[in-house]
Amino acid sequence: MSQHGIKKRKLDRSTEDHMYFDSYSDVTIHEEMIADAVRTNAYRTGIFQNTKSIEGKVVLDVGAGTGVLSLFCAQAGARKVYAVEASSIADQAVRIVKLNQMEDRIEVIKARLEAIDLPEQVDVIVSEWMGYALLHESMLNSVIFARDKWLKPGGLILPHKADLFIAPINDLVVEGRLNFWSTVEGQYGVDMSCMTDFARKCIMNNDITVSPVTVEDVLSHPCKFAELDLHTVTPEQLKDVRGVYRCECFGSSSIHALCVWFTVTFPADDKALVLSTSPFKPETHWKQAVLYLDDPVDVMQDTQVEGEISLYPSEKNSRHICIHVDYAIGEQKKKSKAFSIPDQFLEV
Amino acid sequence: MSQHGIKKRKLDRSTEDHMYFDSYSDVTIHEEMIADAVRTNAYRTGIFQNTKSIEGKVVLDVGAGTGVLSLFCAQAGARKVYAVEASSIADQAVRIVKLNQMEDRIEVIKARLEAIDLPEQVDVIVSEWMGYALLHESMLNSVIFARDKWLKPGGLILPHKADLFIAPINDLVVEGRLNFWSTVEGQYGVDMSCMTDFARKCIMNNDITVSPVTVEDVLSHPCKFAELDLHTVTPEQLKDVRGVYRCECFGSSSIHALCVWFTVTFPADDKALVLSTSPFKPETHWKQAVLYLDDPVDVMQDTQVEGEISLYPSEKNSRHICIHVDYAIGEQKKKSKAFSIPDQFLEV
Repeated sequence: MSQHGIKKRKLDRSTEDHMYFDSYSDVTIHEEMIADAVRTNAYRTGIFQNTKSIEGKVVLDVGAGTGVLSLFCAQAGARKVYAVEASSIADQAVRIVKLNQMEDRIEVIKARLEAIDLPEQVDVIVSEWMGYALLHESMLNSVIFARDKWLKPGGLILPHKADLFIAPINDLVVEGRLNFWSTVEGQYGVDMSCMTDFARKCIMNNDITVSPVTVEDVLSHPCKFAELDLHTVTPEQLKDVRGVYRCECFGSSSIHALCVWFTVTFPADDKALVLSTSPFKPETHWKQAVLYLDDPVDVMQDTQVEGEISLYPSEKNSRHICIHVDYAIGEQKKKSKAFSIPDQFLEV
Repeated sequence: MSQHGIKKRKLDRSTEDHMYFDSYSDVTIHEEMIADAVRTNAYRTGIFQNTKSIEGKVVLDVGAGTGVLSLFCAQAGARKVYAVEASSIADQAVRIVKLNQMEDRIEVIKARLEAIDLPEQVDVIVSEWMGYALLHESMLNSVIFARDKWLKPGGLILPHKADLFIAPINDLVVEGRLNFWSTVEGQYGVDMSCMTDFARKCIMNNDITVSPVTVEDVLSHPCKFAELDLHTVTPEQLKDVRGVYRCECFGSSSIHALCVWFTVTFPADDKALVLSTSPFKPETHWKQAVLYLDDPVDVMQDTQVEGEISLYPSEKNSRHICIHVDYAIGEQKKKSKAFSIPDQFLEV
């Protein structure tokens, strides 16, 4: 019936880590990731199309989980794969590696990436580090650490590039929920229409809402606002991933929210392979990150939506992402709003 | 991507209360309750069919929320309704009462029921106190307190009776999830079939899982195992609501879980009105409480499932329900398992 609120508090680093790694011990998240065919096939293809850089080489898998990416790399001919995983799912990875008779080539290391000691530098880093809104859980810092400490000069990172996008969206579900309170009198004979304001404040709040946006709801072409080159990005840069955006609306509608998503790209000789979490593409388990405005804003064809957006780690828990958005819609004066992942994150 | 685990700890009473009442401030739970037409119409009809006991009388609404039940009682002719609500949704109830021009007859009291002081005894108590598995959040204790302190002798309680039921169920979703790991090799060329054991331990765990059970999944007739008469039940009895059950399976299948649900009944001169959360009836927001066995058990027609079940408050948080079940299936020897509501409760 209820979601009990947990008091907010600043967590120390070891508690953060413990909570973080704990959360990967359950089967559900791994099932969801493996069952996400867009994700898993993109990695499989991205790895296999780089076979000539992997064959006979040494690979480091950062946050290996069940070890599936390590197995793809071994199948692509890697001489040795170090599969580093801090949570207890590493025990399952060991069993899976054995079942696939790859124990001579894949070594599962149950430890935090930052704490490992490898006998050699690696030729390739592979990692599925992306969280909601790309940076939630900020595992990218571990990939950077691995790159700076263990990757040979000129080594390969899979994927090697990430892009962030934004677009305004209409949200029929929220529209229906706001309208609901005006329908109560017709249904039960009690007028509850005065709840609409309260409902809007509760629903169009400061949470980063993770939910699947349908293509019909997107009100403009995507606007790319930031790009991360994994070969050069620094931890300092991840403290404020920022960009400007400008979108032009397709037609008459109402903007409820700005929607943020990402792509990552695998290098290739011919055609780079893109794993996209765009609402214009098949749904992935990342869905999209939805940032509700305080109020719906009506727009027409060619109404401009522009501003600046910044992603940065939460002060309370550095693994949690916050997003700050400035937005000006048409002739309205610029507003701004800051968002964070709710304490008790619920998938919608 | 993850659900961060919160460390378990024993909460003091005021923290429990604060968390509990906090959770009712958001609009979502109230929207869900009002939009649950099975629930809201049952209360509306249950109240209206008792009009002759309400007309000109004084009513106490325990945990009034948005005040909808108070308004039904006022519409049924109550002279005065005390709508007691401790969470900040009481502020919305005040506005709704005004909008419906009932402020002379409905008094919203923003306080814990146990702390209020009324100028008079009441003729009727109305309350929608039921949580998941009937007793999760144990608001029934407040109804009992209200009854013992404020209800006139011979007064009415709406609803006046609650019944608890159990039946074994098959779960195709869980079956599919357990089988998933054997399908990975066909899809991606990596054998992950050894994950099935781990998946079973994670999925068929000790959580009380709240999810909608479809009628096709129920493997026997319902068995009633406990009954609460709201006129006589004591807080002492709520510390251990216990009963035996025996079910006979319809046909060949596999039992994954025992499913628990409840009904509450409104008194009537002719035909008592029953609000049912049975899987054989239209779905409500309570869904059903599902208790997974450790392993699926195959059954045939007439296989007996029998044992004892007990509902009791958690030691960590007295508002949270735990369930202990003994079960013997066919010739198998008796087993037992204890369940609780997960710390971070997720609707499925």
